[in-house]
Amino acid sequence: MIVLGIDPGLKNTGWGVIEQRGSRLRCLAYGCIATEPAHATPERLAEIYAGIARVRERYAPSEAAVETVYFSNNARTAFATGQARGVALLAASGMEVGEYGPGEIKLAVVGSGDADKRQVQYMVKAILDLPSEPHPDHAADALAAAICHVNARVPHRARGGAR
Amino acid sequence: MIVLGIDPGLKNTGWGVIEQRGSRLRCLAYGCIATEPAHATPERLAEIYAGIARVRERYAPSEAAVETVYFSNNARTAFATGQARGVALLAASGMEVGEYGPGEIKLAVVGSGDADKRQVQYMVKAILDLPSEPHPDHAADALAAAICHVNARVPHRARGGAR
Repeated sequence: MIVLGIDPGLKNTGWGVIEQRGSRLRCLAYGCIATEPAHATPERLAEIYAGIARVRERYAPSEAAVETVYFSNNARTAFATGQARGVALLAASGMEVGEYGPGEIKLAVVGSGDADKRQVQYMVKAILDLPSEPHPDHAADALAAAICHVNARVPHRARGGAR
Repeated sequence: MIVLGIDPGLKNTGWGVIEQRGSRLRCLAYGCIATEPAHATPERLAEIYAGIARVRERYAPSEAAVETVYFSNNARTAFATGQARGVALLAASGMEVGEYGPGEIKLAVVGSGDADKRQVQYMVKAILDLPSEPHPDHAADALAAAICHVNARVPHRARGGAR
């Protein structure tokens, strides 16, 4: 199974693709779609959509995991992130999509819901056996979302197999 | 000039298409893309995108006006609306897009920034010479955004013509 993780943001949308074979996870690619704040919002959203579409085309993931934040101190930031997330979810439509909160992702990857960014990067490197910690943060968070998605599926599979 | 107005929402995305010929405004069509809350968010966003794309294809607007709300009492609602707005802006990419707040739209259509929904519907009917008030609210708001966009353009044109 190939899973696409996405950490959506209007300025930076992190993405990461992992492959699960049995109990082994392998990183196929990761990166970040950075958009220019000087550009109009529709064009920035189109860049995010096209960027995810390219990744989808190239790695043919069957499922997607999207990091979800429902709150923000700043309503404008919340809206900007919501817009980017809408476009990311649209780009993932037709795939099975899981949405996970930051605490849920950290718990799955680090074992603690309030882990910091460095711990997430360290564990993503360890779990995926990467030569170095993935940068930027957004890409590491996207890979972490994909790892969380794979872990979240395990109980469903176990239930499915027991029927 | 043909303008597509959009009032984006995850549950209901209103749309309206108006044509400007000289000082005259004419309504070409309006409607509402309603999505099923029981469906997954990516599929709902895909319905919104496809709905706007169909309207765009049919009426070939050159510009778009999108109602913009930056705040909400409910963070989840803000995010849901932000997602729908992201998809609406994406569907409008490549066009000239104006974003207008609710107060700005009411001011342009009714002449008062705190007009209520009935007043907006009444004035939209009057300005576009419609046989009845446009329903639902979302469609009326989308038409109002398009009217606001046409009005907002006038000073720019005047400046352009004076050069």
